[in-house]
Amino acid sequence: MKGLLKGWEGMCESSGMLRFVDRNLRGIGQVMFQDNPLSGLLFFIAVGWGSFAAGVPQVAIGGLVAVLSGTLMAQWLRVEKASINAGLYGFNAYLVGLALATFMAPTPQLWVYVVFGSAVSVVVTIAITNVFKTWNVSALTAPFVLTAWLLLLATNLFSGLDGGALPPVGPIVPIDAAAANPLQVAEFVQGIFTSITQVFLKGHGPAALLFLAGLAVNSIPAAVFGLVGAVAAVVTAHALGAESELVTAGLLGFNPVLTAIALGAVFYRPSPRVVAYLLIATVLSVIVQGALIAALTPFGIPTLTAAFVLVTWLFLLPGLKFE
Amino acid sequence: MKGLLKGWEGMCESSGMLRFVDRNLRGIGQVMFQDNPLSGLLFFIAVGWGSFAAGVPQVAIGGLVAVLSGTLMAQWLRVEKASINAGLYGFNAYLVGLALATFMAPTPQLWVYVVFGSAVSVVVTIAITNVFKTWNVSALTAPFVLTAWLLLLATNLFSGLDGGALPPVGPIVPIDAAAANPLQVAEFVQGIFTSITQVFLKGHGPAALLFLAGLAVNSIPAAVFGLVGAVAAVVTAHALGAESELVTAGLLGFNPVLTAIALGAVFYRPSPRVVAYLLIATVLSVIVQGALIAALTPFGIPTLTAAFVLVTWLFLLPGLKFE
Amino acid sequence: MKGLLKGWEGMCESSGMLRFVDRNLRGIGQVMFQDNPLSGLLFFIAVGWGSFAAGVPQVAIGGLVAVLSGTLMAQWLRVEKASINAGLYGFNAYLVGLALATFMAPTPQLWVYVVFGSAVSVVVTIAITNVFKTWNVSALTAPFVLTAWLLLLATNLFSGLDGGALPPVGPIVPIDAAAANPLQVAEFVQGIFTSITQVFLKGHGPAALLFLAGLAVNSIPAAVFGLVGAVAAVVTAHALGAESELVTAGLLGFNPVLTAIALGAVFYRPSPRVVAYLLIATVLSVIVQGALIAALTPFGIPTLTAAFVLVTWLFLLPGLKFE
Repeated sequence: MKGLLKGWEGMCESSGMLRFVDRNLRGIGQVMFQDNPLSGLLFFIAVGWGSFAAGVPQVAIGGLVAVLSGTLMAQWLRVEKASINAGLYGFNAYLVGLALATFMAPTPQLWVYVVFGSAVSVVVTIAITNVFKTWNVSALTAPFVLTAWLLLLATNLFSGLDGGALPPVGPIVPIDAAAANPLQVAEFVQGIFTSITQVFLKGHGPAALLFLAGLAVNSIPAAVFGLVGAVAAVVTAHALGAESELVTAGLLGFNPVLTAIALGAVFYRPSPRVVAYLLIATVLSVIVQGALIAALTPFGIPTLTAAFVLVTWLFLLPGLKFE
Repeated sequence: MKGLLKGWEGMCESSGMLRFVDRNLRGIGQVMFQDNPLSGLLFFIAVGWGSFAAGVPQVAIGGLVAVLSGTLMAQWLRVEKASINAGLYGFNAYLVGLALATFMAPTPQLWVYVVFGSAVSVVVTIAITNVFKTWNVSALTAPFVLTAWLLLLATNLFSGLDGGALPPVGPIVPIDAAAANPLQVAEFVQGIFTSITQVFLKGHGPAALLFLAGLAVNSIPAAVFGLVGAVAAVVTAHALGAESELVTAGLLGFNPVLTAIALGAVFYRPSPRVVAYLLIATVLSVIVQGALIAALTPFGIPTLTAAFVLVTWLFLLPGLKFE
Repeated sequence: MKGLLKGWEGMCESSGMLRFVDRNLRGIGQVMFQDNPLSGLLFFIAVGWGSFAAGVPQVAIGGLVAVLSGTLMAQWLRVEKASINAGLYGFNAYLVGLALATFMAPTPQLWVYVVFGSAVSVVVTIAITNVFKTWNVSALTAPFVLTAWLLLLATNLFSGLDGGALPPVGPIVPIDAAAANPLQVAEFVQGIFTSITQVFLKGHGPAALLFLAGLAVNSIPAAVFGLVGAVAAVVTAHALGAESELVTAGLLGFNPVLTAIALGAVFYRPSPRVVAYLLIATVLSVIVQGALIAALTPFGIPTLTAAFVLVTWLFLLPGLKFE
C-alpha cells in the first residue's frame, strides 16, 4: 500500500493534472480526516454506489462538481499550497455539493448553485480556520454547515431555486412514545451501517463497508473509532427512546461517528482516559443532534454535521492533555 | 466569621473529605460569585427551602447530585486545583441540575441525565473559559445556559426524557396590554424578592432573605447590588408595561440581579460612574430578558440566565476603566 | 472641496460646539464608511427627504436623536478621542434610531427607547470592536443589528413599547413562483435606486442620488462600487427568481451595496481579482439576505444589515492579499 502511494505521489510531483486529481481525492478523504487519495477514492465510489442505488445520481455528481470547483477556487485564491495539497479546501466544498444536490431538485440552476456554493465554502473555510486558530482548534465541517444552511434557507425566497426535498417547516412536536419501538437485531446492525454512510448524506447500508475500508487503508484507529462511534450512537439513541426510524436510517448516528473519529484517531492518541472522554462526547453528540433536529424544525433545514462540530469544538477547546 | 472560616480552611487542608465538601459549597456560592463555603451553605439551604415549599424536592436534590458530579468530573479531568478549590467548576453544574429537575419529570432517567449533563457542563466551562480568556472576560453562566438548552431541547426527540414542565412551543404573541396591571405594594415587594430567588430557578419569596444573607456574609456590596438590581428590574419591567404575573414571579428580575452584582461588586469597584454604567446594564438586562423570552417561544425552552450572560459580556468586553 | 473641509476642520479645532456637530455628521457618514462631515450632511438630508416623503418624519428625527445621544455616550465613556472624532461611535447609534423609529409607533416611550438604545449601541460597538480586533476585522454594523434586534424583539413583552410596524410573525412559506414577474426597465432602475436608499431603511428612490453624491464627495470608488453593488444585486435577485416587489423596494439590494463598498473601496484597493472577489461576495449577500429573511420569519423582526455584516466578515477574515 505504502509503495503504491509513494509511486502515485511521485507521479503527482511531475504532472500538474495528476496533482489536481490527487488534491480532489484527498479533499474527499478529508471528510473523515483522511489525507490519503485512496481513502478519497473509496469514499467517492461509496457515495456513487449509495447515490445510484437510491436513484439520485445527481448527488454523486453534485459532490464531484463541488470538490472540483472548491479546489479550483482555492488555487485561484492562491492560498498556501501545502493545505491545498492535503485536501483541506476540498472536503467542505464536497459536502456542500452533496447537500445541495440532496435537498434541492435537479434543475439547471442547481448546478450553478453547486459551483457557486462550493467556491464560497472555500472562503468560509479560510475565515473560520483563522478564527479558531486563535484557540488551536480546527474549523472541522463548520464551513460546510454554515454555507449549506444559508444556501438552503435562501431557496424559500427565490423561485429559481427549488428546495423541494428539504424537511417540512413546522412547530416542534415532542416524540410520540409509540414511535420508539424495540429494535430487532437486523435494524440495529442497519443503524450502525447507515450511521457511517450518513456522514456523506446517504442512508445506503452496504456502502458503509467501503467507507470503513477507506478509513482502514489510511488509519486502522480511524476505522475502529468510526465503528465504535456508530455502535455507541445506536445504543444511546435507542436507550433514550428515539424514534426507531431515525435510528435505523442513521440520522442520529453520523455526528457521533465523526466525533469519535476526531477525538479518538485524529486529535488525541487513544488511552483509557481518552476513550472515556470521547465516549462522553459521542453520547453528547447523539443528544445534541436531537436538540438541533428540534431547534431547526421551524426553519425546515437539516442539521447536517452541526452536532459533530459543536461537540468536538467543546471537547477540543479545553486543550486537555491526557498523558 | 473570619475566624470560623479560617478554622474550616485549616480542617479542609488536612482532610480530603472536608476539602471535597468545601469545593461543592463554594461551587454553589459561585452561582452568585461568592467564593465562600458559608455563602454556598446558605444558598443550598435556601434552594432546599424553596424547593420543598413548592412541593418539588427533586429540584434541590437534582442540584446536589449535579454539583457533586461536576466537582468529581473536574477532579477526573485533573484541571488546575486552585480553580476547583474556588468552586469554579461547580456552579454551572449546580445550575444544570436545578434546571433539568425543574423542567423535566422526576423519572429514573432524569437522574442519569443530571449526572451526565453536569459532567458535560464542566468540559463546556473549560471550553468557554478558554475562548473568553482571549478578551479577559470570564465565562459567567454561559456553560450552564448552553448545556441546559441543548439537553432540554433534546427531550423533544427522546421518549425516555420527559420535558413535560417546559414552556409550551408556539408562535410569538405580543403582550395584551390588559395583562400589565397596576402593581400593589405587596406585589412589588414580592417581585423584588422572587427576582433574587429566581437566580436559582425558584419563585419562593421568603428564601430571598437567606440568599441575601449568603451574599452578605462574604460581601456586603454584593448583597447591596443584588437588591439594587432587583428593585431596578421590577421598576423597569413595570414601567415598560410588562405582564404583572411575570414581574411578581421574578421572571424578569433574576438576570438584572446577576448583572448588577457582577458589574457592581465583582468586576468593578463601585463609584458614581460605575453605578450609572451598571444601571444601564441592569435596565438592558430586563429588556434583553424580554427579547429572549420572545425569541425562545418557538423552541419551548426557558431563557435561563442568557440575558445576564449576554449583557454582562457586552459591558465587560469594552474593558473600560472608570477610575 | 478640500479647502472647504480644511477650513471647517480648523473651525472645529477652536470650537467645542462645532467639533460636536462634526462628530455627529461624520457618524452619519460612517454608515457608508465615509469619514467626512459633508458626506454625513448629504446622507442626513437624504434620510430627511425620504422620511418626510413617506409621511414618517419621526424616522429622520429618531436618527438625529440617536446619533446625538450615541456621541454623548461615547464622550461620557471617555473612549479614545480619535475614534469619536472619526464618527466611529455614531453610525451604529444613528441606525438604531432609524430602525426603532421605523418599526415602532411614535409614542412618547419611543423617544426614551431611542436614547437608551443608541447609548447602549455605543457599549456594544466597543465590545464587538474589541472581539474582532483579534482578527484585524472591524465591527461593521453588527452593533446596530444586535442592539436593534434585541430592542425590537422585546416589544413583544412590554405593552409600553409598540412594535406595530414590525414584520408579521409566522411560519416560513416558500415563494409562490408567480410573484417573480418579469421586471420592466423602470422597475429595474427603481430597484437599483431603492437598494441604495434602503441602507438607511428608506425606500425613496430619488434620494439615492443624494446618497451617491455623499459618497462621491469623499470617495469616487465608494460611489462607483455602491452603484455596482446595487446593479449586481438587482440582476442577481431577479435572475434567481425573487419576488418582484422585494426587488423594486430595494429589500434584497441594500446589503450587497454595503458589501461592495466595503470590499471595493474601503478594505481593498480595486484590481481585477479584487473585483471578482467582491462580486462573489455581493451575489452571496443577496442569497444570505434571502436566507435571513426566511430565518427571521418566525421572530417577526427585520434582517437589517446582518447579511452585509456576515458576508463581509467571512470575506475579510481570510486576510487575503490580492497584490
